[in-house]
Amino acid sequence: MTTTAFDILSEDLGRRGIDVPHVLARLKQQHIETPSWGYANSGTRFKAFAWPGAARTTREKLDDAATVHRFTGIAPSVAIHIPWDKPEDGDYAAMGQYARDKGVTIGAVNPNVFQDDAYKLGSFGNPVSGPREAALDHMLECCDIMRRTGSDALSLWFADGTNYAGQDSLRARKRRFEEGLGVVYENLPEGARMLIEYKFFEPAFYSTDIPDWGTAYAWALKLGEQAQVLVDLGHHAQGVNIEQIVAFLLDEGRLGGFHFNNRKYADDDLIVGSTNPYELFLIYNELTEAAEGDIEPARDCARRVAYMIDQCHNIEGKIGAMILSVVNCQEAYAKSLLVPRQDLAQARAAGDVLGAHELLNGAFKTDVRPLLARAREELGVPVDPYRDYVASGHDAALAAARGVAGGSGGGFQ
Amino acid sequence: MTTTAFDILSEDLGRRGIDVPHVLARLKQQHIETPSWGYANSGTRFKAFAWPGAARTTREKLDDAATVHRFTGIAPSVAIHIPWDKPEDGDYAAMGQYARDKGVTIGAVNPNVFQDDAYKLGSFGNPVSGPREAALDHMLECCDIMRRTGSDALSLWFADGTNYAGQDSLRARKRRFEEGLGVVYENLPEGARMLIEYKFFEPAFYSTDIPDWGTAYAWALKLGEQAQVLVDLGHHAQGVNIEQIVAFLLDEGRLGGFHFNNRKYADDDLIVGSTNPYELFLIYNELTEAAEGDIEPARDCARRVAYMIDQCHNIEGKIGAMILSVVNCQEAYAKSLLVPRQDLAQARAAGDVLGAHELLNGAFKTDVRPLLARAREELGVPVDPYRDYVASGHDAALAAARGVAGGSGGGFQ
Amino acid sequence: MTTTAFDILSEDLGRRGIDVPHVLARLKQQHIETPSWGYANSGTRFKAFAWPGAARTTREKLDDAATVHRFTGIAPSVAIHIPWDKPEDGDYAAMGQYARDKGVTIGAVNPNVFQDDAYKLGSFGNPVSGPREAALDHMLECCDIMRRTGSDALSLWFADGTNYAGQDSLRARKRRFEEGLGVVYENLPEGARMLIEYKFFEPAFYSTDIPDWGTAYAWALKLGEQAQVLVDLGHHAQGVNIEQIVAFLLDEGRLGGFHFNNRKYADDDLIVGSTNPYELFLIYNELTEAAEGDIEPARDCARRVAYMIDQCHNIEGKIGAMILSVVNCQEAYAKSLLVPRQDLAQARAAGDVLGAHELLNGAFKTDVRPLLARAREELGVPVDPYRDYVASGHDAALAAARGVAGGSGGGFQ
Amino acid sequence: MTTTAFDILSEDLGRRGIDVPHVLARLKQQHIETPSWGYANSGTRFKAFAWPGAARTTREKLDDAATVHRFTGIAPSVAIHIPWDKPEDGDYAAMGQYARDKGVTIGAVNPNVFQDDAYKLGSFGNPVSGPREAALDHMLECCDIMRRTGSDALSLWFADGTNYAGQDSLRARKRRFEEGLGVVYENLPEGARMLIEYKFFEPAFYSTDIPDWGTAYAWALKLGEQAQVLVDLGHHAQGVNIEQIVAFLLDEGRLGGFHFNNRKYADDDLIVGSTNPYELFLIYNELTEAAEGDIEPARDCARRVAYMIDQCHNIEGKIGAMILSVVNCQEAYAKSLLVPRQDLAQARAAGDVLGAHELLNGAFKTDVRPLLARAREELGVPVDPYRDYVASGHDAALAAARGVAGGSGGGFQ
Repeated sequence: MTTTAFDILSEDLGRRGIDVPHVLARLKQQHIETPSWGYANSGTRFKAFAWPGAARTTREKLDDAATVHRFTGIAPSVAIHIPWDKPEDGDYAAMGQYARDKGVTIGAVNPNVFQDDAYKLGSFGNPVSGPREAALDHMLECCDIMRRTGSDALSLWFADGTNYAGQDSLRARKRRFEEGLGVVYENLPEGARMLIEYKFFEPAFYSTDIPDWGTAYAWALKLGEQAQVLVDLGHHAQGVNIEQIVAFLLDEGRLGGFHFNNRKYADDDLIVGSTNPYELFLIYNELTEAAEGDIEPARDCARRVAYMIDQCHNIEGKIGAMILSVVNCQEAYAKSLLVPRQDLAQARAAGDVLGAHELLNGAFKTDVRPLLARAREELGVPVDPYRDYVASGHDAALAAARGVAGGSGGGFQ
Repeated sequence: MTTTAFDILSEDLGRRGIDVPHVLARLKQQHIETPSWGYANSGTRFKAFAWPGAARTTREKLDDAATVHRFTGIAPSVAIHIPWDKPEDGDYAAMGQYARDKGVTIGAVNPNVFQDDAYKLGSFGNPVSGPREAALDHMLECCDIMRRTGSDALSLWFADGTNYAGQDSLRARKRRFEEGLGVVYENLPEGARMLIEYKFFEPAFYSTDIPDWGTAYAWALKLGEQAQVLVDLGHHAQGVNIEQIVAFLLDEGRLGGFHFNNRKYADDDLIVGSTNPYELFLIYNELTEAAEGDIEPARDCARRVAYMIDQCHNIEGKIGAMILSVVNCQEAYAKSLLVPRQDLAQARAAGDVLGAHELLNGAFKTDVRPLLARAREELGVPVDPYRDYVASGHDAALAAARGVAGGSGGGFQ
Repeated sequence: MTTTAFDILSEDLGRRGIDVPHVLARLKQQHIETPSWGYANSGTRFKAFAWPGAARTTREKLDDAATVHRFTGIAPSVAIHIPWDKPEDGDYAAMGQYARDKGVTIGAVNPNVFQDDAYKLGSFGNPVSGPREAALDHMLECCDIMRRTGSDALSLWFADGTNYAGQDSLRARKRRFEEGLGVVYENLPEGARMLIEYKFFEPAFYSTDIPDWGTAYAWALKLGEQAQVLVDLGHHAQGVNIEQIVAFLLDEGRLGGFHFNNRKYADDDLIVGSTNPYELFLIYNELTEAAEGDIEPARDCARRVAYMIDQCHNIEGKIGAMILSVVNCQEAYAKSLLVPRQDLAQARAAGDVLGAHELLNGAFKTDVRPLLARAREELGVPVDPYRDYVASGHDAALAAARGVAGGSGGGFQ
Repeated sequence: MTTTAFDILSEDLGRRGIDVPHVLARLKQQHIETPSWGYANSGTRFKAFAWPGAARTTREKLDDAATVHRFTGIAPSVAIHIPWDKPEDGDYAAMGQYARDKGVTIGAVNPNVFQDDAYKLGSFGNPVSGPREAALDHMLECCDIMRRTGSDALSLWFADGTNYAGQDSLRARKRRFEEGLGVVYENLPEGARMLIEYKFFEPAFYSTDIPDWGTAYAWALKLGEQAQVLVDLGHHAQGVNIEQIVAFLLDEGRLGGFHFNNRKYADDDLIVGSTNPYELFLIYNELTEAAEGDIEPARDCARRVAYMIDQCHNIEGKIGAMILSVVNCQEAYAKSLLVPRQDLAQARAAGDVLGAHELLNGAFKTDVRPLLARAREELGVPVDPYRDYVASGHDAALAAARGVAGGSGGGFQ
């Protein structure tokens, strides 16, 4: 019998007190939701480059999401965007069935209250009542769609804000928002969650109406327990410690989910983990510490977090990029499972600054690919999903079948 | 009779619907608190340059604060820092009397839980209980000092945090803080407020335990109505909209006070208004809109805000810099009083983006010096406080009397 | 005779040693170029809201630019963008004549090497030669258009860069750029200038090929004296001191021009001076100090700077916003002309930190509107251009005549 | 024979075309210089916590540097700081001999022109000539010290700048700097290099006189070929792509050296690689690509780069932190040696965005510890330097021998 990289790694982890079978079990339970809009063409304000074979319809988006799941085994659900994914005939049951036939399910419902002309000065924050009511109608429609698709998460992102100081009353906008969200909350399907996303900039440039986690959290407190905060990794100012926000929200039981992506400066919506893999690891470390720990409500909260990708693939293929994103989340999660929690707790209690830091980093430095290969074998998916996908020729086949679609003009949060 | 700049301005403001006598009345009621530590030498981590004549003792600091009040008429109180201002004999009554004799009063009490060796890994956030208890003892002592000095504000800033990922549990630090603050809150003097300051960076570099207003606000909610948030203008990441934080906290009745200063990049602690005077105006605009409006609790909250300066004068004279700071606040406040609120409300309601922006800016563009000159005349102070101070020769007199003190090594928040 | 605000101001300035007639003369010589694309609809990646009456054709853009000049008197030229402003019949002479008939002239020529599908991975920086050659052909065509329109400035902005680390060789891209720029430089019309714009982020997110002034300057040095640097106010990281870059480039004779706009976080392309009017003043202060001084090459360089607006009006009217932008530049320039240069030099030489700062700020605090009113009277334009424009009903007339155009999809630098 | 992690890794790398013996040879040639001041106590402006056993004298600093070299095998030289390391008797020969006896040599000489009272308004940029001349005298003394210690690098960092707009002429400061640097350059020892460090902020807050690489580079061009740019990883605005600056300077033959450290927001001077290990890898990737390539002058330039650590250990032990820093550089360098350059070149040429990105990341993901263990065995040093150092009890021995020194007040660049 030949000694393999997995054997070596497994033995080494065992020596460090890591329960490898438990780690493998967790890795097989991981679940990352991909976004329907991530399979269509997208771009910057300067240009949307068309990718040959990019999805043109919701069916094609569901097909592509199913492909990602087939290659990774841990992406079984798809977030939808209304109205981009609205069936012409309104038959959501058929849409759900189509998804299930392909091997995936419908995940979070994402309303769009930023692309109608009426929303130029905002939706719930608009100084004029018409657009506020239109936004509310749309939200209630989305609650209904949740009931029809069986979705249990309403994922809210708003483009609202102002571009010029003085343009509107910041306090009045706040109160309008609290009113609008209150009505939506009352109409959530039973057992469903409202995930409130924040963003400190763009597309409003002077102020955004939900600029930070503090605002989203304050409103979640007012609304009730079904309201939680959604963290998009690209929606913070430079230098903000995101994993600390995650830790705070976990400790209060108010972390609802993520929009995963990465950025160097603004909301670049690049592949998650591509710009700063260490940050992604540190975020997963907080989640795993809570989920594997015994402190409530953090433990329960961590186990219910909705992990969703929200990216904008401007110059690269869509499916390959999505597979890479899922893989990057998988690697970060795997590393977080290798942190020796007991040793770490001891080092921290002793005030051993560098000792604790190094224990954490030991996990990050570990090459977890042999571990993931084993988990993938057990999941029945390719050992190297991205390489296999590229080798499969699927992109070329899609390009031949679908051609080059015009830019979809899709907006991305 | 000669037409003066004030006449011209007054007439013009009248045409725009501004009640000039009301503005003058408000300007004479303005109150800015200066910090005792701002009169001593300070510096950067590289060097503390000594200013000839800088205050060496609390008495000298109180003398200097009284000088600032004498030249401006609107700086009648002094924040103190414990233990830097601790009387050797513990006679706080004598300290208060000394201040009153000079024409000022004792304002907020600022505990120091960052300069003892024990606080290397934190105070309330420390993984070890000893430093946590020492911090608590110090806080309770400060509550007692409040009673003895008649101070009604406990102003809390913490240097707590971590420098390296993994060094400590972010959630555990949060819970330790909540515990410590809870005990202090229970021991506040009756009717006094606890002001919780946040800071997203420095002197801890990987994480700070109260990184943002959201954290301070969440804790204030848990503690009770006497707990409010303190906003230091230099404690935010680049690009953060500070006036929006002010607006949110006002609307919730949780804005407790300010530490005024300015910065270009980090927490530079420069003269308030020196780097971005427009931002200072926008902050005052929110405060004035709330204070002059009729919406509660914002109105009441705005009227109780503690306006405090917290600066670090590294290369310039202390008293002159403090006078300039007070003057800059005065100018910003004056401009905010000139905003035509009714016209602005109409433009906003009509969605007139640029019209509303220009109404606000019209106030900013106004040269309010003639207005301030009038208010100062009525207050019985020099019409141009900074110029008069420079011309007075006071700096040279202090230098002759006090000499050059060594760097005080004072820390500044 | 009634004493006016101008009389009061003029007398006060005289006392401070300011030569008011000289200031008025300078103000009447000021020249701000507006961009043809700023009159069309534009937007963010999320949505381009259509403004009723926005220009649909180059003729309409020239009409609108002429309107801005008619209301301000200091915006006599228009930057054009190729191919957006390419005449169908190639008759640039007719285009120039049309402009002159309307009262304006053609200014800088702006090539576009970012909107063809071929440029997905870059133009001059592209790893493949085809797009590089296409970009070169387009540049040479633009040099030809300069000859035909009499334009003396080629204004270069590139969207080139990479989104993912490793995607391309950073050094190879640099060398490709140096090669491409070299060929263009050799083909510049005689006496014309090449203005090289830099931008540290967007639409490429991991690296941009001309990220900073240092890169643009290094290349200008290699190319020759006709190559200069173009500073866009929105193209820097947070905290960068833009006026210092201006000072450096002036001192080396390499400051070619500006793209004026403003931003709070990224490249927001808001109205210049709307977010940070003090910064705009400080930039003008450097320009005026050089232009009114006697040190070469700074003096000559400052006098030849091309002042151009480059904005993106997403939620506001185009012409009104452009008038405000011109007015904001005018105010900043006027204030810079009021700085008492001799007193300032003395304060600086004496190391009087706050004295020097206050002399500069005295100019900023001055309300220059009476001065501008006088200059406008002498120019024969409205005393309050924005208010007059709004009152003129021109926007409504254009909306009636032109209707609502679809989003032009225009890209903005 | 047992299969080891090294065997597995070595075989895998071989399959990917990596020449493992070459990699090991390179790793054994790596050279990181540690700073004498990094072994003394340091702190923030708020507090300098004393570490028991921290070095109190230059001899102790040299002892500690020798310890770091003994544990790592790749830190054979020590940067010195004048006057902190000035021998009382001026016997530099004895200092050099002491170092050699301990097993290390004297590296770069770092002048200090920021801690004398005279430098309050700057050194070379000072508006007054006295401090400028004092700075020049000190620089010439340092050139002399270089001759006496055999040092071949003068490492220049300046605290110069201004805190308030208007305080001094930005152009005048620039010209004064050019004059001062010119004199120093003329007095460099033959064959020695002048390394010009830049920093965009702190301790001057409004402007720093060498804010960015562009300024340092422009001056290096003017001075001559012995002048190069020094990159400190903490001296950039947020979002700046440091590896691209490295690439540019390499391509021009003007990259002189590094000050390694890490930061989350400002110039935190944390352990290099501790906050963003991926960034450190990307920087090493540029260096290795140049050094192992065949393009001049990049290749030669890369091979002469001075790798120096400049950190400030505020709450952790000095020697352990320095060992970790050296190890982190070693890991980043090792990973950069594993990048499959030929495959990468092909992917780039083909425009395969994600393929190229993944080839680079494959190297980053690799756990290089088995490789470093082998290199360390061959160097005759511990396989796990940090763990061995902690286990050695050396810190406790030093604490016992040296006691707790007061804060050294050392400044750090």
